[in-house]
Amino acid sequence: MQQIIKKKRDGKALTQQEIQHVIDGLISEEIPDYQISAFLMAIYFRGMNDEETTWLTDAVLKSGEQIDLSSIEGAKVDKHSTGGVGDKTTLILAPLVAAAGVPVAKMSGRGLGHTGGTIDKLESFPGFSVDMSKEQFIERIRKHNIAICGQNAKLVPADKKLYALRDVTATVDNHSLITSSIMGKKLACGADAIVIDMKVGKGAYMDSIDEAEKLAEAMITIGQKMDRKVVVVISAMDQPLGYTVGNALEVREAIDTLKGGGSAELKELCLSLGAEMLKLAEHVTSIEEGRKLLQSLIDDGSGLKKFKELIAAQGGDVSMLDKPELLPVSSYSRSYKARKAGYITEMHAMKIGRASVCLGAGRENKQSKIDLGAGILLRHKVGDQVVEGDTLAVLYSDSESSFDAAEQHLHEAYHISDTAPKMQPIVLKTMR
Amino acid sequence: MQQIIKKKRDGKALTQQEIQHVIDGLISEEIPDYQISAFLMAIYFRGMNDEETTWLTDAVLKSGEQIDLSSIEGAKVDKHSTGGVGDKTTLILAPLVAAAGVPVAKMSGRGLGHTGGTIDKLESFPGFSVDMSKEQFIERIRKHNIAICGQNAKLVPADKKLYALRDVTATVDNHSLITSSIMGKKLACGADAIVIDMKVGKGAYMDSIDEAEKLAEAMITIGQKMDRKVVVVISAMDQPLGYTVGNALEVREAIDTLKGGGSAELKELCLSLGAEMLKLAEHVTSIEEGRKLLQSLIDDGSGLKKFKELIAAQGGDVSMLDKPELLPVSSYSRSYKARKAGYITEMHAMKIGRASVCLGAGRENKQSKIDLGAGILLRHKVGDQVVEGDTLAVLYSDSESSFDAAEQHLHEAYHISDTAPKMQPIVLKTMR
Repeated sequence: MQQIIKKKRDGKALTQQEIQHVIDGLISEEIPDYQISAFLMAIYFRGMNDEETTWLTDAVLKSGEQIDLSSIEGAKVDKHSTGGVGDKTTLILAPLVAAAGVPVAKMSGRGLGHTGGTIDKLESFPGFSVDMSKEQFIERIRKHNIAICGQNAKLVPADKKLYALRDVTATVDNHSLITSSIMGKKLACGADAIVIDMKVGKGAYMDSIDEAEKLAEAMITIGQKMDRKVVVVISAMDQPLGYTVGNALEVREAIDTLKGGGSAELKELCLSLGAEMLKLAEHVTSIEEGRKLLQSLIDDGSGLKKFKELIAAQGGDVSMLDKPELLPVSSYSRSYKARKAGYITEMHAMKIGRASVCLGAGRENKQSKIDLGAGILLRHKVGDQVVEGDTLAVLYSDSESSFDAAEQHLHEAYHISDTAPKMQPIVLKTMR
Repeated sequence: MQQIIKKKRDGKALTQQEIQHVIDGLISEEIPDYQISAFLMAIYFRGMNDEETTWLTDAVLKSGEQIDLSSIEGAKVDKHSTGGVGDKTTLILAPLVAAAGVPVAKMSGRGLGHTGGTIDKLESFPGFSVDMSKEQFIERIRKHNIAICGQNAKLVPADKKLYALRDVTATVDNHSLITSSIMGKKLACGADAIVIDMKVGKGAYMDSIDEAEKLAEAMITIGQKMDRKVVVVISAMDQPLGYTVGNALEVREAIDTLKGGGSAELKELCLSLGAEMLKLAEHVTSIEEGRKLLQSLIDDGSGLKKFKELIAAQGGDVSMLDKPELLPVSSYSRSYKARKAGYITEMHAMKIGRASVCLGAGRENKQSKIDLGAGILLRHKVGDQVVEGDTLAVLYSDSESSFDAAEQHLHEAYHISDTAPKMQPIVLKTMR
């Protein structure tokens, strides 16, 4: 191992055997964490070429069980989001794509820090569970065309161990490590093709579109080398996505969107990502056709129906879909008001995300319990003109004492100015 | 810690508080090894400026107990060797300097890999021990002007932990880490001034004199910042030093040298290092005066007498000093012969060191037991003219089966050519 660390430290390319040795030793615990973390830091500085990244992805993918979806007909297309604030696209997209006739086999995570997680959101439906065997997962997809499972400890154990180390050793920010982590995970879940929603902006891991493009190129290249199609949609994450931040609040917005309402940017992103998924699955021949199909599934209620079917299949109480007011809501609320008149020019997504964590909607650390009914309902978005005292947002929490700290984050998050801001589209670029 | 790793990763200078935090966390084990090793790799790539290195040295120095030698009159000057093959200078130098009237408070180590350790060599005298309390150490210096102790677990625990991690994570080769390790250790032992024997060549950690000069400059600078004088003698380590490699064999050569015999280059290096020590201690006013004084202590037998006094004081059997043939010798020996005629142009020190480890004279790993009587007696050195079949070296081992492997290393180590090599002096440069 020492020789492998030294080789990477000195900027040399590793062989497939060497990379496999590291991942094998990581899993068997024969290589201690302190050697792995030094190795990761050497990768941070020296990078990995496309071949090394492909081998690493392959080793991560094969480090544990893999889900074989070949018994389900058609191309299995997965979507991955690099993480943002108020990102409820999976809740809308997954049922729509399934309703379109393309199987959706989704592995989702929980939220940590300023970004939420799909599983937490879905647990707003009492009884909803992501616990299931591999066989149940496949059976459900076969039956309903959709299933959402949690991150199985048996899948990509190498990724879990590597990520835990990267997280605490300042070695997260490396394109090869990011690529192998995302792709290894998705491919272990049986995806034939992947659409990546790469967030860029103040609430995202990356804030420069140039950096996002480079990472996107790396992912597309590794996809090609592994014989998987990858499409990257680079989307804006300067302000929260849509009008809600917080678990049950976001579920309500997802239901609204599936009913044809909701925020225009949120729908636009869902249609963009969904059309790419349908196209990759060769279910449609053009993006335009895909968008139209998805829109029609909103219009005729098929998407909402599929969502209901998903919730019911996984044990959730579907009465809340008809009566969203039954979804959890925190005991206390407070209006957050504009302190001056003008145009909203900034709603810093990460700061708003932090405010929502204060309110109980997110986890400070892995042990934190979250309050499903907590969060922030945004009354206005960037570009809106407001007068002093207008309610910008309504905060919800079970802890009245949390409002002051949350408001402090919001004071920092909001900028109001005399001149209207330049608006940017939600989808900044699509790379195929 | 994560923020500190990130700061160094991004090439920023750390504050004294941050460096202290790392060393405190290392000692208290509140910072896990995997964060420390990532931090070390970040230092490997980003380096540390002189201030950071000084703070690190200071933190390492203060991480455990310190030996206060202020009760002993005069400047305490320590010598450190960066490690070579056949390096028995301490055995000669320490008694000579003590005999000159300058107190020698020496902390020594054991051998590992292709280089030997002073303590192993001294244990060739049955009964010799380096176990002693701080008080005994000081008392012995006061009484005999010399004492040699082992590396105390209570001294510089930070250095021990850091070194153990660096050793297995390819982060040894960094000037700041090397400097803080050597200087921290020496200063914790109470040294007022330090002479460093920096080896350069095929048997040394460094093989370029330019690199050695840079490291020497860094050490001298850190010494100045910590108000300690540092002199660096850069010496050649292409071939083994002197005519012996192996513990008891080296002791015999040291005795020969103290008796006025031995190899010219070995004596030259001892006089050079010793004169610098005497000058730093302000015991002489010039290097020339120091050399003459040391030579006179060889000539009149005072150095040998002091060596005997040291061995006796630390429990060793001194009868062997009068009868060196009583020192341990392995059961088997084999002559290694020249395979062709010509000039010896190379005797690769590291390869000869490896041969001696094969024979049992060194440790493959920290658990290995060593055979004090094993090793290699060199009959010729680089520049000598030999004919085919001449004995180049005599190998000693308690394991007859080890000779073949050792010879294999020697085949690779020796180069014999038709033209005489260009000879280099043993002392390549002295930096003050």
